[in-house]
Amino acid sequence: MMQVADAFPPAWIAVDWGTTALRVWAMGAGGTVLAAVASDQGMGALAPQAFEPALLALIEPWLAGAGNPVPVVACGMVGARQGWREAAYRAVPCTPLGGPLLAVAPHDPRFTLHIVAGLSQAEPADVMRGEEVQIAGYLATHPGFEGTLCLPGTHSKWATIRAGRVSSFQTCMTGELFALLSTTSVLRHALGGPGWDDAAFLDASAEALAAPETLSTRLFAIRAASLLAGQSPATARARLSGLLIGAELAATRALWQGPAVAIVGAGQLASHYAAALAAQGRVAVSADASDVTLRGLAAAYAILQQETPA
Amino acid sequence: MMQVADAFPPAWIAVDWGTTALRVWAMGAGGTVLAAVASDQGMGALAPQAFEPALLALIEPWLAGAGNPVPVVACGMVGARQGWREAAYRAVPCTPLGGPLLAVAPHDPRFTLHIVAGLSQAEPADVMRGEEVQIAGYLATHPGFEGTLCLPGTHSKWATIRAGRVSSFQTCMTGELFALLSTTSVLRHALGGPGWDDAAFLDASAEALAAPETLSTRLFAIRAASLLAGQSPATARARLSGLLIGAELAATRALWQGPAVAIVGAGQLASHYAAALAAQGRVAVSADASDVTLRGLAAAYAILQQETPA
Repeated sequence: MMQVADAFPPAWIAVDWGTTALRVWAMGAGGTVLAAVASDQGMGALAPQAFEPALLALIEPWLAGAGNPVPVVACGMVGARQGWREAAYRAVPCTPLGGPLLAVAPHDPRFTLHIVAGLSQAEPADVMRGEEVQIAGYLATHPGFEGTLCLPGTHSKWATIRAGRVSSFQTCMTGELFALLSTTSVLRHALGGPGWDDAAFLDASAEALAAPETLSTRLFAIRAASLLAGQSPATARARLSGLLIGAELAATRALWQGPAVAIVGAGQLASHYAAALAAQGRVAVSADASDVTLRGLAAAYAILQQETPA
Repeated sequence: MMQVADAFPPAWIAVDWGTTALRVWAMGAGGTVLAAVASDQGMGALAPQAFEPALLALIEPWLAGAGNPVPVVACGMVGARQGWREAAYRAVPCTPLGGPLLAVAPHDPRFTLHIVAGLSQAEPADVMRGEEVQIAGYLATHPGFEGTLCLPGTHSKWATIRAGRVSSFQTCMTGELFALLSTTSVLRHALGGPGWDDAAFLDASAEALAAPETLSTRLFAIRAASLLAGQSPATARARLSGLLIGAELAATRALWQGPAVAIVGAGQLASHYAAALAAQGRVAVSADASDVTLRGLAAAYAILQQETPA
């Protein structure tokens, strides 16, 4: 009977396992996505022994009928010290991906697990886990790219790309600061309502960029303006985002003033970064984070196949 | 029988009621402190109807045998929108205290309550509640003071004093940022242990002052240095504090480069600010926050007595 190239069981399974979410894709041998599911079982929610059950809860239906163990290629915080198994960092400058992947033996014999290494930088000290896969995915479709990749998120990464390698990178805690300040700090009282204010966002990001030393005091002014001047929650939220993204752009100015900037991100957040850069006269191209993640995991799977030729 | 001037029942009761703590003092007619107690029943923990029981739990033993209701003079977040009763702000420039105090009728007839107004500033928008009493207390013992008062805390205040008036002020969220980042953010993993590192604190505060635009990326580097270089929790904690206090000093540079700077604060925190300023060649005098608070509340009580002469 002829083997159908792209049908269940999958040829391999792609896994993006971050701090707050777990996303998996069943992949056909020809690169087709057969199925995709996700859960909230991120690394932050899991004890060491809970990783395998959390993964099986999503992929078990795909393992039926497989003649050999299905290779699972995973990136992100699954390889952190608090993850399933710690995968050593690869030090920049280096290509975003490189073998060997970290092979972990699961209890279930129906799959094998291979974790992608994160990247580290000695000075200034910095680390990433997961974004190296997005960088590889972006370079897979833009092989000649030279310049800066901006990957906004909980811990935004800015990576400098030269000759297909990550020469250096820089992390800003922008997303985590926004989450903490908007939900837990005194500013939450000012943000208690829906909406967004584009003009307030652009004003605030320009203010933080022009005078980054004022960040600490401008943050509290969000609360004061709500108390004294009836500032709306939409304006307060946009100002908080604008101040923090503006501070990030101040910290990374040398990186986005270079020859080329591409933003790899999701929806609204990526467009906020693009708008703040555009207001500084900088046009950045954008790529969808989910798409580049999957392309990067496919590149990691290709490395795995070279390691273990059939 | 002759009346003993400084004995129970107290002539009045002083109350400092912040977001996280409630402190009360039984005061004799001659200004003596007859007793002092405190609880963790700060404004943040209390529903509107819970303020009076929280206060009575501390002061009720002092009310026995009083011929007339005992005046209670209170400052701080007790007068906030989320407090016992909202006290309108007084707008700077103005003296730190001014009448009339906000009279609130408690259910219990054995005391009367008088809340000190906070201060507001229209542009840049800013507010304070409680620190105006500390400013008044400092000026009570330093009547000719002209310069800048630094009041470190959850929301640090920097006030410019001219001719006995607060001409302007500025708030930095330093203490709240430290609390959130050290206990809730990814940096908590790096700070999981005791200790302090003076040299790391001074290095970090100088770095943040010299290049405030790098704050966002230097924060994450605390985590990375722990992962990659085995940085100790003591060094990580001191670096986090140094970066945030350095950022505050960057935001307030014009204020501490003026003719005189005094720090009104408690213990270690005040000495950290003094050390960071000293490293910039700026010698600041220090005053104990608890002492100036009580002196300021006594000044507010004096205003109350002028309002309602016996």
